[in-house]
Amino acid sequence: MSDNESFLTLMHLGIDTHQQLVVYMRHDCHVAIAEGFNAHGRVEVRTAHASIIATLVLVSHDFLSHAHAGLSDAAWQQLGRPDNGERAWFRHAHAVDSMSYVRGKLYGEPFTNDSAKEIINDIKLGRYSDIQLTAFVTACAGNRLDLAETIAITRAMVESGQRFSWPNRIVVDKHCVGGLPGNRTTPIVVAIITALGLCMPKTSSRAITSPAGTADTMEVMTPVQLDYEHMRSVVEEQGGCLAWGGSVSLSPTDDMVIRIERALDLDSEGQLVASVISKKVAAGAQHVLIDIPVGPTAKVRSLPLARRLQELLEETGRALGLNVRTMITDGNQPIGRGIGPALEARDVLQVLRNDPKAPQDLREKSLQLAGTMIELAGKAELGCGAALADDVLRSGHAWQQFEAICLAQGGFQEPTLATHRHTVTAERHGVIAYFNNRFISRLASLAGAPNAPCAGIDLHVQLGDTVLQGQALFTLYAEAAGELAYALDFLDGHTDIIRIEQECV
Amino acid sequence: MSDNESFLTLMHLGIDTHQQLVVYMRHDCHVAIAEGFNAHGRVEVRTAHASIIATLVLVSHDFLSHAHAGLSDAAWQQLGRPDNGERAWFRHAHAVDSMSYVRGKLYGEPFTNDSAKEIINDIKLGRYSDIQLTAFVTACAGNRLDLAETIAITRAMVESGQRFSWPNRIVVDKHCVGGLPGNRTTPIVVAIITALGLCMPKTSSRAITSPAGTADTMEVMTPVQLDYEHMRSVVEEQGGCLAWGGSVSLSPTDDMVIRIERALDLDSEGQLVASVISKKVAAGAQHVLIDIPVGPTAKVRSLPLARRLQELLEETGRALGLNVRTMITDGNQPIGRGIGPALEARDVLQVLRNDPKAPQDLREKSLQLAGTMIELAGKAELGCGAALADDVLRSGHAWQQFEAICLAQGGFQEPTLATHRHTVTAERHGVIAYFNNRFISRLASLAGAPNAPCAGIDLHVQLGDTVLQGQALFTLYAEAAGELAYALDFLDGHTDIIRIEQECV
Repeated sequence: MSDNESFLTLMHLGIDTHQQLVVYMRHDCHVAIAEGFNAHGRVEVRTAHASIIATLVLVSHDFLSHAHAGLSDAAWQQLGRPDNGERAWFRHAHAVDSMSYVRGKLYGEPFTNDSAKEIINDIKLGRYSDIQLTAFVTACAGNRLDLAETIAITRAMVESGQRFSWPNRIVVDKHCVGGLPGNRTTPIVVAIITALGLCMPKTSSRAITSPAGTADTMEVMTPVQLDYEHMRSVVEEQGGCLAWGGSVSLSPTDDMVIRIERALDLDSEGQLVASVISKKVAAGAQHVLIDIPVGPTAKVRSLPLARRLQELLEETGRALGLNVRTMITDGNQPIGRGIGPALEARDVLQVLRNDPKAPQDLREKSLQLAGTMIELAGKAELGCGAALADDVLRSGHAWQQFEAICLAQGGFQEPTLATHRHTVTAERHGVIAYFNNRFISRLASLAGAPNAPCAGIDLHVQLGDTVLQGQALFTLYAEAAGELAYALDFLDGHTDIIRIEQECV
Repeated sequence: MSDNESFLTLMHLGIDTHQQLVVYMRHDCHVAIAEGFNAHGRVEVRTAHASIIATLVLVSHDFLSHAHAGLSDAAWQQLGRPDNGERAWFRHAHAVDSMSYVRGKLYGEPFTNDSAKEIINDIKLGRYSDIQLTAFVTACAGNRLDLAETIAITRAMVESGQRFSWPNRIVVDKHCVGGLPGNRTTPIVVAIITALGLCMPKTSSRAITSPAGTADTMEVMTPVQLDYEHMRSVVEEQGGCLAWGGSVSLSPTDDMVIRIERALDLDSEGQLVASVISKKVAAGAQHVLIDIPVGPTAKVRSLPLARRLQELLEETGRALGLNVRTMITDGNQPIGRGIGPALEARDVLQVLRNDPKAPQDLREKSLQLAGTMIELAGKAELGCGAALADDVLRSGHAWQQFEAICLAQGGFQEPTLATHRHTVTAERHGVIAYFNNRFISRLASLAGAPNAPCAGIDLHVQLGDTVLQGQALFTLYAEAAGELAYALDFLDGHTDIIRIEQECV
């Protein structure tokens, strides 16, 4: 092929296609004709410095000239942010060889260490289209990954990203498998653990299908997009951090998989285990505590499922040299009052500041988790960890430590709450008998969380509370009138979000 | 929500995203802000006349004003081709309820008649994003659809589209499950069958993963995009047709599923059965013959797999009132010489015109199939069908009939072959012992077929032929130099496309 003729001049078009790499080209430009390109084909884009595989969109509108190719934001980023005016060459992308393993898996052929490595590497390099990535995610769903495959994928994910090591430090970490609205224990636990001199380089994800992840909640108070060097310096200085995992590239494919899972409203058990364990290994942790809330509307619905997950997590951790402890906790209702980034941040700050209004359930669960981690790390006798954690919290050391971490990450700011509000009241008097966690999460998402960080739900009641007719049950917060309307629409059709039962006489 | 404020003015942007429905909007326009829209979110677009669900792409470039929303070609089409300047209203799309059945299936919950109906209807209305559609396709792959589910999906597909009925006619049809390059018997069979006064309203698909489907091949000779009324009139006039199935909407979701399968290079057995049977039922057929080529590199690799497919096809046909006969045929080598639309068309024309150079294997297989169909329809005694077919072909009646059908469809033109050519020769002398059908198909695809209709492969040898060193094995045809280069690249790495063995002495 004659390289002299087949180039186009690149333009950063200002088109946001999220993570999808897209290249725009005139359908009748000389490259499209010479190469026989078709709409939605996969093409290789090569500059003097880098190359990517992108999905082709053909344009017949004059915003693009016949001499230019436009890049979506993600394509421009992945291509190393070329200057406007740089030349690029184009050809049909080769078929991605590792897709044959994905097809094999659909026919029952298990993934091996080698095939997992090739797949994860191709995903990392952006070689999988959304359609191919979805086939991989779906092939893993429905508990179709066994222990050996889960270990293989976890190892491949660790190898695909950056790794930290913290010489001469005792490094602990925690994780919650999720599914319970609120439950924002991590910022409190990090503050307590690091105040005690242990090391906790915490990276968190953004929400998958929930209204907030820890990274979303922290982001309303402090920057969480730390790069590798910045995260390292925060941890070296403060003993810990509260960063978003995606920006340090501990497990670069994880966010891509999560985006697909979110679009499908699907959680895959094997992917969950690989995601958690790979990031803990890459963060340099030695001891990890994993919180598994169990309840009829939590992510894990029954004890047998929780036990299976426990085993997969502990065994996968062991295979990768990690001491994993799991804790099965009550998943019958949300923890804390707020649901959504800013509302959860408010709860976290009340606990850290020893505010008398602080939600006690969030305080107690945080102490229980921190206590167990202190014991895991050998900093307290068995049974004495929670009391030590309580001391650190009560004394104000945890709050000072939290502030110091935020300052090291780039500053602290108080969360603000959204201004469009609507309070839902009890239609009858009685006792709060049931929370539907899934509907509560859905409602908070419809109100805009986590993309609208000040949106969400503020709960005014807990299981077992006695309420009078007309008493406030919860308040909806939204940043846009449209979003408040979606949430209210949903409420119309779903009355059983919080069930009130008549007391027995 | 205040409808007065939240509209944007529509523009047909001239952006080809293939079948994906995409809407483009300024990230900072009043609608995106008020509704809290995010890149790659799913939004409902509603005009006074119609509504669609589309994927949102956010733009920060001035080719789009803040008062406009742009539509991709497919979105504009699906929205009923609104005028530029028409107003539209936007909101977050509701979650697609039927996706819960897809998630359920991933966890082993079979599809029912009702869930299949809801899924197929949502796909038809464009409510599934590519990611959701891929999850559905993948959930069905790997032989995960049992007979009851296959019947449910087939029925749902029939109900989702248009149907033909042909009162007082004996209606026969044929289908090949594919996987064998060349093998273009259908045009010959339709000509013979309709010349005998039987009715054969044949609709064909385009290539899925192969270098040509019957619709692709026919399209180089005659228009195949007939609408419902045109197809009806051709069949009423000529007794048969050779149309593309997609344009008559016999099974509108089928092409969407096929696009995903093509991107994944994946064929799902259940989807295959549903696709074939639904279109035959919708076309109004009573008797159907299905050709199942079996060979180590054909789509169906072994007799047990062929028998399973036979049973699924026959049982699903029976459940929908169709008399299905299957025929297991030799899939060890391509049928005919040409591979790719125009090259296959040349072979078909040679057979129909009784050209002495016509490939005899294609001629004989066509007669065998046509003969069985004649017997199925009761037009000949058992064992006498092929001879009757031979008479019709030899007499020139089949060719006259083929020409008449093409003229009724809009005209006939001779195929032309691509000008970039490269002939591959034998590296040693010996006997042709093996064809890798998959590699041959792949090679023809790389050369550009079927999107470049004049591209492909012309075979000069068959199994059992003795060749001398340097003798021509096959010629590659490409419409663009780039495509010829891809094919040659592939040849470099895959020498075992045609195996030559030393003769035993």
